[in-house]
Amino acid sequence: VALMFYSNDDPADRWRRALTDLMPDLDFRVWPDVGDPNEIDVALVWKPPRGELRRYPNLKAILSLAAGVDAMLRDDSLPDHLPIVRMVDPSLTDGMVEYVLLAVLRHHRMFDHYERMHREARWDYVFPPQAAERRVGVMGLGVLGGEVARALAAHRFPVAGWSRGPKTVAGVECFHGGDGLRSFLARTEILVCLLPLTAETADILNADLFARLPRGAAVVNVARGGHLVDADLIAALDSGHLSGATLDVFREEPLPPDHPFWRHPKILVTPHVASYTVPESAAAGVVESVRRVRAGEPLLNVVDRGSGY
Amino acid sequence: VALMFYSNDDPADRWRRALTDLMPDLDFRVWPDVGDPNEIDVALVWKPPRGELRRYPNLKAILSLAAGVDAMLRDDSLPDHLPIVRMVDPSLTDGMVEYVLLAVLRHHRMFDHYERMHREARWDYVFPPQAAERRVGVMGLGVLGGEVARALAAHRFPVAGWSRGPKTVAGVECFHGGDGLRSFLARTEILVCLLPLTAETADILNADLFARLPRGAAVVNVARGGHLVDADLIAALDSGHLSGATLDVFREEPLPPDHPFWRHPKILVTPHVASYTVPESAAAGVVESVRRVRAGEPLLNVVDRGSGY
Repeated sequence: VALMFYSNDDPADRWRRALTDLMPDLDFRVWPDVGDPNEIDVALVWKPPRGELRRYPNLKAILSLAAGVDAMLRDDSLPDHLPIVRMVDPSLTDGMVEYVLLAVLRHHRMFDHYERMHREARWDYVFPPQAAERRVGVMGLGVLGGEVARALAAHRFPVAGWSRGPKTVAGVECFHGGDGLRSFLARTEILVCLLPLTAETADILNADLFARLPRGAAVVNVARGGHLVDADLIAALDSGHLSGATLDVFREEPLPPDHPFWRHPKILVTPHVASYTVPESAAAGVVESVRRVRAGEPLLNVVDRGSGY
Repeated sequence: VALMFYSNDDPADRWRRALTDLMPDLDFRVWPDVGDPNEIDVALVWKPPRGELRRYPNLKAILSLAAGVDAMLRDDSLPDHLPIVRMVDPSLTDGMVEYVLLAVLRHHRMFDHYERMHREARWDYVFPPQAAERRVGVMGLGVLGGEVARALAAHRFPVAGWSRGPKTVAGVECFHGGDGLRSFLARTEILVCLLPLTAETADILNADLFARLPRGAAVVNVARGGHLVDADLIAALDSGHLSGATLDVFREEPLPPDHPFWRHPKILVTPHVASYTVPESAAAGVVESVRRVRAGEPLLNVVDRGSGY
């Protein structure tokens, strides 16, 4: 039996080393050199070529190299009967927590404003409120959203979270569903989107949602470009209703050079760098999945294809 | 007996409320309405008029409204025999920790770089190292520097501290003195200055110091403008030896509109907003000082005029 690896974005050699350090007898095969397709029982992949995973008759599980599986699920050639396991990686989580803390602090402490003042040589001596008076809201309370909410609360921000169904996160005021969304938005001055991208959450960051945020709110999107209606964000910034946005994900990546997000004075574009899977840190979880597949034990972190995450 | 208050920058009314909430019988007098000078036993002040504090024959202590007392000590009209107490305020500390964490994360996660790329509409997909691989150094391990170093270490940065004499901070590698400075600088990729401004530390951030930092290092100055040789910083940035700087304090404030720091693409100027004294949070410490003065007990946080801090 062997593991088949496919990704255009992840380092195959580092993955091989990290996995075989923990599981020396692992037969790690990088696409297209996969040998006999009958021998492959696990695929560790990101966006494999269409139909590719149907070539392995004895495949038992698909392990995603990314935490967000929306792009994989859009591929209707994926074998329907196989479990898909999302990536859970402590370094990926740490990286996301760090990026969001930075983005939220930057809006909170008005560095976006001072950056504009710096370019205009203007000394604008204004103080922000203290963290304990700045209400932050996190949409999506999965592995990443939950950790981000906890970290922001640990920094003394009053933090609320919103999710589709009810959840509990220590130190975080939790809202859920359509009714909860209105109350959540009305109290949120800095909004962080960490939702999975599904049919229900596509386009959720739109004019109607922005209008429910208090005037002067800022938005941080680190989930998927498909959550955000680009033109609605620009309109809300230009009207002055929103004060700023930090965007790491886009409908088209790289963001095209003529996109209006570039150079917009109230937007910071970062090139999808909030967080990334670190093989050395993620390998333990992958090895555990491989072990469970081969022992016939139930897998952890399996995607619910019905809800799309 | 009565307390005399003087400041052009601090809100007298909030101070009166905060102090009398805790000490209802406190006679709080705002300059120039100080009444009988013989009745004043404590001065709570920031940069009082020259010679003013010599007018109170029964004055027993000078309480500074700021943590850094260099500006007060430059006034040689201050009565020599009186203790000067520096401001220690939990909110001031929290604000400083928050600002420095933001400034350090911003350099660490390359937001300064992405800000430039944003203005050029350039998608530059490069990842920083993880926090555990980014060495941060804090110069000055007093109340503020010590807390900042601890907070950066809690964020998993490998943190070193440097001070004039030997100090110990849990989780922080501590260097001291002239010999320690070289080793401290050689390993520091993001340098934070939180030193007191004294004859020894004036101009310490100069060409020689910058040359001892590794190539690509960034500098954060939240202490005093007098620590930094402005032209040396610009030369080190323009040569590419340093990658960026965040500056909150300047030799002249507001920073003059024609100063080369403004608009420099590798510098962010913020208008002395890293941290400020919050009366409601600082009042307990002031009340304790007043109580000790009147009970004849030794004061806490007394400035050593010999060393200048």
